Amino acid sequence: MSDRYVVGVDYGTLSGRALVVRVSDGAEVGTAVHEYRHAVMDTVLAATGAPLPPDWALQDPDDYREVLRHAVPAALADSGVPAEHVIGIGIDFTACTVLPTLADGTPLCELPDLRERPHAWVKLWKHHAAQPHADRINRVAAERGEPWLGRYGGKISAEWQYAKGLQLLEEDPAVYARAERFVEAADWIVWQLCGVETRNVCTAGYKGIFQDGAGPSADYLSALNPNFIGFPAKLDGPPAALGERAGSLTAQAAAWTGLPEGIAVAVGNVDAHVTAAAAQALEPGRLVAIMGTSTCHVVNGTVPAEVAGMCGVVDGGISAGAWGYEAGQSGVGDIFGWYVEHAAPAGYASHEVLSQQAAAQPVGAHGLIALDWWNGNRSLLVNHDLSGLIVGLTLATRPPDVYRALLESTAYGTRMIIEAFAEAGVPVEEIVVAGGLTTNTLLMQIYADVTNRPLSIIGSAQGPALGSAIHAAVAAGAYPDVHKASDAMGRVHRGVYQPDPERAAAYDALYAQYRLLHDHFGRGGDDVMLRLRAIRNAARGESHA
Amino acid sequence: MSDRYVVGVDYGTLSGRALVVRVSDGAEVGTAVHEYRHAVMDTVLAATGAPLPPDWALQDPDDYREVLRHAVPAALADSGVPAEHVIGIGIDFTACTVLPTLADGTPLCELPDLRERPHAWVKLWKHHAAQPHADRINRVAAERGEPWLGRYGGKISAEWQYAKGLQLLEEDPAVYARAERFVEAADWIVWQLCGVETRNVCTAGYKGIFQDGAGPSADYLSALNPNFIGFPAKLDGPPAALGERAGSLTAQAAAWTGLPEGIAVAVGNVDAHVTAAAAQALEPGRLVAIMGTSTCHVVNGTVPAEVAGMCGVVDGGISAGAWGYEAGQSGVGDIFGWYVEHAAPAGYASHEVLSQQAAAQPVGAHGLIALDWWNGNRSLLVNHDLSGLIVGLTLATRPPDVYRALLESTAYGTRMIIEAFAEAGVPVEEIVVAGGLTTNTLLMQIYADVTNRPLSIIGSAQGPALGSAIHAAVAAGAYPDVHKASDAMGRVHRGVYQPDPERAAAYDALYAQYRLLHDHFGRGGDDVMLRLRAIRNAARGESHA
Repeated sequence: MSDRYVVGVDYGTLSGRALVVRVSDGAEVGTAVHEYRHAVMDTVLAATGAPLPPDWALQDPDDYREVLRHAVPAALADSGVPAEHVIGIGIDFTACTVLPTLADGTPLCELPDLRERPHAWVKLWKHHAAQPHADRINRVAAERGEPWLGRYGGKISAEWQYAKGLQLLEEDPAVYARAERFVEAADWIVWQLCGVETRNVCTAGYKGIFQDGAGPSADYLSALNPNFIGFPAKLDGPPAALGERAGSLTAQAAAWTGLPEGIAVAVGNVDAHVTAAAAQALEPGRLVAIMGTSTCHVVNGTVPAEVAGMCGVVDGGISAGAWGYEAGQSGVGDIFGWYVEHAAPAGYASHEVLSQQAAAQPVGAHGLIALDWWNGNRSLLVNHDLSGLIVGLTLATRPPDVYRALLESTAYGTRMIIEAFAEAGVPVEEIVVAGGLTTNTLLMQIYADVTNRPLSIIGSAQGPALGSAIHAAVAAGAYPDVHKASDAMGRVHRGVYQPDPERAAAYDALYAQYRLLHDHFGRGGDDVMLRLRAIRNAARGESHA
Repeated sequence: MSDRYVVGVDYGTLSGRALVVRVSDGAEVGTAVHEYRHAVMDTVLAATGAPLPPDWALQDPDDYREVLRHAVPAALADSGVPAEHVIGIGIDFTACTVLPTLADGTPLCELPDLRERPHAWVKLWKHHAAQPHADRINRVAAERGEPWLGRYGGKISAEWQYAKGLQLLEEDPAVYARAERFVEAADWIVWQLCGVETRNVCTAGYKGIFQDGAGPSADYLSALNPNFIGFPAKLDGPPAALGERAGSLTAQAAAWTGLPEGIAVAVGNVDAHVTAAAAQALEPGRLVAIMGTSTCHVVNGTVPAEVAGMCGVVDGGISAGAWGYEAGQSGVGDIFGWYVEHAAPAGYASHEVLSQQAAAQPVGAHGLIALDWWNGNRSLLVNHDLSGLIVGLTLATRPPDVYRALLESTAYGTRMIIEAFAEAGVPVEEIVVAGGLTTNTLLMQIYADVTNRPLSIIGSAQGPALGSAIHAAVAAGAYPDVHKASDAMGRVHRGVYQPDPERAAAYDALYAQYRLLHDHFGRGGDDVMLRLRAIRNAARGESHA
């Protein structure tokens, strides 16, 4: 295996990254990035220049093919590995990013008569214009007591397949009718690679309400809209486990990528979930936190449990044989960035300066608590109209005090999630951190102290692409399963940050305050944040946030 | 009267200002300032270089005489008025600023054997080392149901005469025993001017628990400390109404000031209260807000009422024939200054820039509410361990948003006070603003809109000194009473800011949110601020804030 290689491709929001990885030990030997030409279309549709409504976010699927045409050959060239030594390719994608296609996979937006129709294009994960549809999906599901609702913490997101599909039906029924398939971009790009349509269990489960072998019932769909009954038929590609071989690289895809025709193409995956394999964190109890502008948490559990406010639980959703749980914090690095950019005085507008001065403080010395809801709250409250709060400000409060309080607030938010999992019977014994924020050592130590758990750090800066490569190796038969491949090819620095008992005890007292504030403002004690949001929107002449 | 003049002297925290004023119309014709040589002694005693304990703040009484020797002649020279045209002098002082003296008025700190004793010096208003004594004064008064406690909103301040006197007794009984008099600096400087001891009803009432012709009972004082029974005897100078003639300028004081011997010396007064006369705001219902780093509110009422959290109500405390009410906000301009200095990013660190951008916003568009407790809360909550709060923060929040929310928060705090007065039967129909913040037009308009009341602005930049001059004119017999003198000599621009009905309605909705937060955090809903303060102090190794 020491001269065999796989390619992992990580499709992000603005670009795709290809990574060439050695099968025997996961060594990363070459990489390249290709930026999407049309980036995110959120103001105008590039094909026509026509303006888009608020909260829309579209992409051009050909930009994804371009990553195959440019980034993969460039990564291969960067590695110096001969193409014939590559035995497989795997991909991960943002989700839920979804597009309507013909039965053969042709995107509707590539049909000449539909190019000017916004609904014919890819809806990116952060297309948020389907909120009214999601609200109806949730209301009707709650009224009818739909059994799957608890698997999603009680709420289906406006970002997911059914909300986006219902918006498509109700806003552009003609395009809806033409959509023979409604497919995750992860599965679509795999289809482009191997010519075979598959539906990975991860997005089917987390984004497509596919639970216990089925989607929502016809009765339920009819209650939403009688014309929506046929929607599951547009989604019903064969479900495929993560690490399975979706098919073999087609001649065309071989020409695009410069890789050998016929090599294994792995089933598609999601960026956050695939990182668990890269970080050797598939064991139950190891929570992976992918920390960047926001945080996504994934953890395997041995049993299915319902956790209010989590994003979802899916059988095999992270790896076969376990129940994969997902949760999220909607603002993390974004909040620290906001502080540095928009709230730190001259001389303090630097993460380094603030971190250095904040690190010198004893726990609790700043006297502050913040609620980390600058971008709303994903888990556990699932409410994007919530907002940030700081309490304890005095004339003696200085910028490092506020900065440290913001770091801590996101750690408290993570602890809320961990405790909710634990209370539901999904224990978390260790936190494995991936993503851009791993370089902030103060932040990492605060997370260890606040959660009172050891913190491990992923050993790769390209977690998702490495995870995709691991799945490619399994699909190519180099390893019997993803666990074995993860053991050999994944990388983690275990227990880099250990909780300090004294600081952990001090944080227990502060966390108790956070929790009181959390419940007061987030669980109905005082809905002042929601009223302020409504007042704000009215004052700005907006109908919604 | 057109060629007769009076001198008003305003004794502040760091300097004294003399103002020469024409009796006929209040024209300010000359002024001069003299800074105290020893300023505030809060770390070492200047006479010995010995360190002072935390929270002490002393002054040297001879610095007050120096104001008479330098600022008064300089103001007279500045005016060009011949000395023989001056018919009276009046003063106002910070309060409670108090000193122990012999029976003839000699400050104990001027006795050679007591100069090294810190307790022999003037205790400035912001000497806060008597908090434990104040706590005991309040606890014992509440237990015994002392009738005067309600006149002070339920709490005697650590700044006032009884707290400072009890500290003197218990920490330096020898100096206490030598103190034949314990006298407000306002009354002491009048004594220096005319050789006659008086006790103005304003400080006697607000700072000396002198109510309905008497101080606290011997039984009560004995319960505090049996040796404290004699304390009222040290305070029992003849009470004198504001505007009365305390006496005539002595030959010595004439030599100091360059003013004619024998002219009228008015009874002493307090800087905030004397401003009401200068602003033509002696009518019941006209609330004077002296707005600077903090705000002091004074308003006349026709009846005595008990208002929880006010500073005090005193018969004739502002002007004879009315009940004078006082309240306060402990942080106002201080908070705006903190924001500009310690929380505004580069490009925004200016009141002008922030005000200009904040002024362009519709009411409520920033989505924020702040609790204005950066420096604790004086009225109505009387708790200096409360702290500041901001709620509604998002990634889109910008500096002018926060700045405007801070301005508004102090206006909400003022409205809480106004409503408490109104609920107790002391209506406020108009707000008359004095002090340094009158120049911030955005702030003034916000106050008019939030309180839904017209805002008048004092017509003098030297409100206290003008008010003292008005009292001097009455003492000299130029007017029959302070009301008449205020009508002729005071100056106010009436109704400069009018509430806008639409903005006032929008603020009603926001104020409702402020009030909920105020009561939740300040009235026992959640004492998280107090717990955070305790945690902070423990983390810093401090025993108190």
